[in-house]
Amino acid sequence: MAEEATEARRELREAIEAGDKSTLSEVAERIHYADLAAEYEDLDSDDQRLFLLQALDTEVLPDVIAELPNGLVEGALDALQPRQLRKVLETLADDDRVDILQDLSPEKRQKFLGLLSKDDEELTRTLLNYDEETAGGRMTTRVGRISENMNVKQALEHLRPDLEDTETLTRIFVLDDQDRLKGKIRLRDLTFNSWQTPIRDIMQPVDHSVLATADQEEAANMVLRYDMPILPVVDEANRLLGVITTDDAMEILSEESTEDIEKYAGLTGEQSEESYLNTRVLTHFRRRFLWLLGLALLAIASGYVMLRFEHVLESVFLLALFLPMVIAAGGNTGGQASTVVIRAMALNELGAGDALRVAWKELRLGILLGVILAVCIAAVAVFVLPAFRPAMPGSVSFTQFGLAVATALGVQVAASTLIGALLPIFARSVNLDPAVIAAPAITTVVDVTGMAIYFTVVRTVLGL
Amino acid sequence: MAEEATEARRELREAIEAGDKSTLSEVAERIHYADLAAEYEDLDSDDQRLFLLQALDTEVLPDVIAELPNGLVEGALDALQPRQLRKVLETLADDDRVDILQDLSPEKRQKFLGLLSKDDEELTRTLLNYDEETAGGRMTTRVGRISENMNVKQALEHLRPDLEDTETLTRIFVLDDQDRLKGKIRLRDLTFNSWQTPIRDIMQPVDHSVLATADQEEAANMVLRYDMPILPVVDEANRLLGVITTDDAMEILSEESTEDIEKYAGLTGEQSEESYLNTRVLTHFRRRFLWLLGLALLAIASGYVMLRFEHVLESVFLLALFLPMVIAAGGNTGGQASTVVIRAMALNELGAGDALRVAWKELRLGILLGVILAVCIAAVAVFVLPAFRPAMPGSVSFTQFGLAVATALGVQVAASTLIGALLPIFARSVNLDPAVIAAPAITTVVDVTGMAIYFTVVRTVLGL
Repeated sequence: MAEEATEARRELREAIEAGDKSTLSEVAERIHYADLAAEYEDLDSDDQRLFLLQALDTEVLPDVIAELPNGLVEGALDALQPRQLRKVLETLADDDRVDILQDLSPEKRQKFLGLLSKDDEELTRTLLNYDEETAGGRMTTRVGRISENMNVKQALEHLRPDLEDTETLTRIFVLDDQDRLKGKIRLRDLTFNSWQTPIRDIMQPVDHSVLATADQEEAANMVLRYDMPILPVVDEANRLLGVITTDDAMEILSEESTEDIEKYAGLTGEQSEESYLNTRVLTHFRRRFLWLLGLALLAIASGYVMLRFEHVLESVFLLALFLPMVIAAGGNTGGQASTVVIRAMALNELGAGDALRVAWKELRLGILLGVILAVCIAAVAVFVLPAFRPAMPGSVSFTQFGLAVATALGVQVAASTLIGALLPIFARSVNLDPAVIAAPAITTVVDVTGMAIYFTVVRTVLGL
Repeated sequence: MAEEATEARRELREAIEAGDKSTLSEVAERIHYADLAAEYEDLDSDDQRLFLLQALDTEVLPDVIAELPNGLVEGALDALQPRQLRKVLETLADDDRVDILQDLSPEKRQKFLGLLSKDDEELTRTLLNYDEETAGGRMTTRVGRISENMNVKQALEHLRPDLEDTETLTRIFVLDDQDRLKGKIRLRDLTFNSWQTPIRDIMQPVDHSVLATADQEEAANMVLRYDMPILPVVDEANRLLGVITTDDAMEILSEESTEDIEKYAGLTGEQSEESYLNTRVLTHFRRRFLWLLGLALLAIASGYVMLRFEHVLESVFLLALFLPMVIAAGGNTGGQASTVVIRAMALNELGAGDALRVAWKELRLGILLGVILAVCIAAVAVFVLPAFRPAMPGSVSFTQFGLAVATALGVQVAASTLIGALLPIFARSVNLDPAVIAAPAITTVVDVTGMAIYFTVVRTVLGL
């Protein structure tokens, strides 16, 4: 299957290069809309994009446009003829339509809303009131609803007219006469039960639902945790507003996972929906610069500490050989500890009261890591140091020197592990996103403490 | 809903503390099996775990056991009475059963297989042949299958007897008489069409399927990319073997995302299925130590470079003030570049031939970042340096000094950005997992180059 798809995509590119519209239309029919969207994004010129757009069947156009990265949607919509534009807007799933309208200027949004039918316009305006990152902002309303007073036959007859507009029938929700959520059934319960069976007898209780104002990630995590194919979204009065489907949840989790990884690496701002190569250099620049500058300024503190210990370094310059190692080991272990803790917080494993348990675990771990690393490095020093005999002042013995460096390493690793684990918890307790205290920030912080630890320890051990 | 669930879980813990079995059984019925599994994991003693297990209804037991982290499953199974054990093994979904058996010793696996019915045993043995991380190792076989020669009425009658054993009917697959995949339909197409309609007339082509031997992540990405509620898993002859459902796909993606994040932070080995607090210190230790040691040894190279430039540092010790900043800026920008590139590779955005395009983009980006950062730091230096007038040797002017540091910073940032982006691509081209060249490794590598760049540049600019 995969080979056929790749082959079709190659043919598509050739048809575009050749400007061969009829072949293009024919090939496009064999390609999934997600792949068509990816090809559209990869095209180099606006002319080629327009050419592809015009060759697409009106049936597949809304799906392709819904898959495009945000930055390309407006251009694609503007290129459509008025009749096509209206058709696309009408056909889009309500959650996709809202997603697209959210990114337009208010004027254009009004204009596009005006193209919709009265019902769709009203529905879309209501959905636009929910924040983009909430369950309400991501839900679809195209779900099967029946009344608790129906029997199976009535339920089937009730569902039939809207069939084409219903995105999912995996779960059908049972409502009372106030639209409040009373239960759920599966389509198979309707299909394989006798027509006279009352819905009330075969419906199941709804164990989990989510408020429309809840964060989208909370909704996605519920879908994942409770293996729910469809999560109902309700208002304060438990009235059914819409549903989050598993594919919405997967998309949310995939976005959040990229976002998390990028935050850990010190990238700011919204993840670009465009692919790496299609993102402009200036956009990449904006996402990287701020952290770099902030951390660079912070790193001057490290330099200041080093400056203060000038006399220690100058009296035994051989200390420079292990200085970067001690500093870097702190950054590495601190980065590991913070990543593990931030991930545990993201998976809701750590409550507010767990700081002490984390501290106790990481303290033991830090000491263990510090001691074993120190022993390993002391062993390495035994082999390495004799090569530097000329650089060693007569007043210091190899044993003393190795001991000093190993001790400093052990203390730095233990301290950095603890700092790395606790800073994200502290950040959350003052309502900062823990991920901002991820690896790069931790590394810079423990650079400063590491510099102080190294020089203080070696000065003490070597009596400088 | 969330509050009720929290309240019930509190009552559960109280009943366990109090040793009150009848309350425990009653409360447990109100709690989702995923939450019961989480409570089981959080219990401190084996006695309490046994007590909870024995209070659970036999209906919910298999679901709870399937949700437990791998390390706890065997203990739970061993605690069951033989009759319960057989019931649990029989009731487990086939993919969960295989997942559990894969982690047992060969002897115990044989013993447990012997408890199954003939059919289940045979099926399970077949599934056990697939590697744990392949589509075949994750698929369920409990899917609706009908023949292309049936009509709607025959299809419904064919599906009815196995209804309780069929995990999903969202898509029903249509096979020819050799079990080869011919098409798919939705349950609603059966429910809302007349009984005489031939299946052949209403079935849709299957656009995407995956080989049983394909990597699980490939399967999950297909589900995500193509919005497929159910992905068919086939053999070489296109015979339907089973399906990957969306909740399998979500689980796979969530595992892989934790794995990626951990790799980026320099953690080795398999992600523990147990929560952070339930993972033992020694297990945490094993996952962190190796990278720490390797990077510590590598960092000695940095120290060696510093040692070689002793005369430069000793003639203008004020250079120490900006040394950590220049080094760290390289690590940070290199880490960002590698994260972005590794993520793009994981999302299949970068092909083998894209190395030059990446290099060109990151080179421009690196120069831009380097120049702007250098200008900012030069401006800062103007304010900071006068405070260090006594430390500045008479032979060097502030302007010269600031220029030297800013130039070194610019070169280091540009070089590190390029190195950070290209090392993962190089790693992949020699068949290494690109993620092993993630932030911590990059940071250590550019520490070495940074040390050399800093001292070489300042020596040249200041003429030392």
